[in-house]
Amino acid sequence: MVPAGDHRGDEIEALIATMARLPGLGPRSARRIVLHLIRRRAGQMAQLADLMANVARNARECLICGNITQSDICPICEDPARATGEICVVTEVADLWAMERGRAFRGRYHVLGGSLSALDEIGPEDLRIPQLIDRIADENATEIILALSATVEGQTTAHYIAEALEPTGVAITGLAQGVPIGGELDYLDDGTITAALRARRKF
Amino acid sequence: MVPAGDHRGDEIEALIATMARLPGLGPRSARRIVLHLIRRRAGQMAQLADLMANVARNARECLICGNITQSDICPICEDPARATGEICVVTEVADLWAMERGRAFRGRYHVLGGSLSALDEIGPEDLRIPQLIDRIADENATEIILALSATVEGQTTAHYIAEALEPTGVAITGLAQGVPIGGELDYLDDGTITAALRARRKF
Repeated sequence: MVPAGDHRGDEIEALIATMARLPGLGPRSARRIVLHLIRRRAGQMAQLADLMANVARNARECLICGNITQSDICPICEDPARATGEICVVTEVADLWAMERGRAFRGRYHVLGGSLSALDEIGPEDLRIPQLIDRIADENATEIILALSATVEGQTTAHYIAEALEPTGVAITGLAQGVPIGGELDYLDDGTITAALRARRKF
Repeated sequence: MVPAGDHRGDEIEALIATMARLPGLGPRSARRIVLHLIRRRAGQMAQLADLMANVARNARECLICGNITQSDICPICEDPARATGEICVVTEVADLWAMERGRAFRGRYHVLGGSLSALDEIGPEDLRIPQLIDRIADENATEIILALSATVEGQTTAHYIAEALEPTGVAITGLAQGVPIGGELDYLDDGTITAALRARRKF
């Protein structure tokens, strides 16, 4: 008798199991995606496998900012128009991508690769802070924008960086805190309302 | 100036766009999965790309039952212990996999590949009904279990198959309808309650 679970063949089984471990997916969504792909196995599935193999081979961190890209220097750091002297410090690559979607910032980035955290034993030497200090001199930076999360870890990290950069004399700014666009007061947490009230502006 | 959106390189961009088109995923979950994979690019990502390429190359429909597998005949149809004379008719491969998870059925399957639908112009010739009739004689089938959805299309298809199989003299059964295990009456639709009441059994 065939053991239960082995009714699809080993590779399909392994593909479903691997997909099910991806963030946000589970066994049910993995099965659904794999069946969808198998129906399009000559087109979309082969193409996706190729793309994935190429990205696995070619993806790397930009040597300057830490963005993930397929060359040693990412398109942002390579673009001379973005050498504005402004460097936006973000925690993770996902934050850099989110900033780019907003299209509001036209300078360069610096990805820390995490937040300071005593609990997870992440100290300053685990983040890309020395590289940031080097860049300030190398690129004649005039302003460092700390676009870190409004969490305890994010703000601890921001304070640490601000102190570490003090000797360089560079201007250090942070993102404004307040009511998000489209945010209804009734659904906002007390901390955000307090911060928005403290930072109130002339109308 | 680099056009907005091209801050990651073409292949990463294309991988995210392709993943975002998979069922149940969108741009946000696709970005999250791709970043997760890129962090594990030498291990999990390369392995997933390999698996996907292999499945795209080797996956096919079982020539007998229509299950998706990596050989011409699937492990279920190849297993002599499952030649019980019972054939369970299901709409899609996903239904076959769901039945196998239940481990209650130890016979063989027949995947129709869809339901009859006047709206979508799916007629009997688009489903694998002639193959089912052939199998009844070839495999000396004694019982055909119609495990089709309890929807209008599913039940229309079931009635059509029952009529088409009548000349063969094979026994035709359907799944019981009633209260699902763990189902609270209060949350069940009226149709299910009515069906469960009509099919009530001695306690």
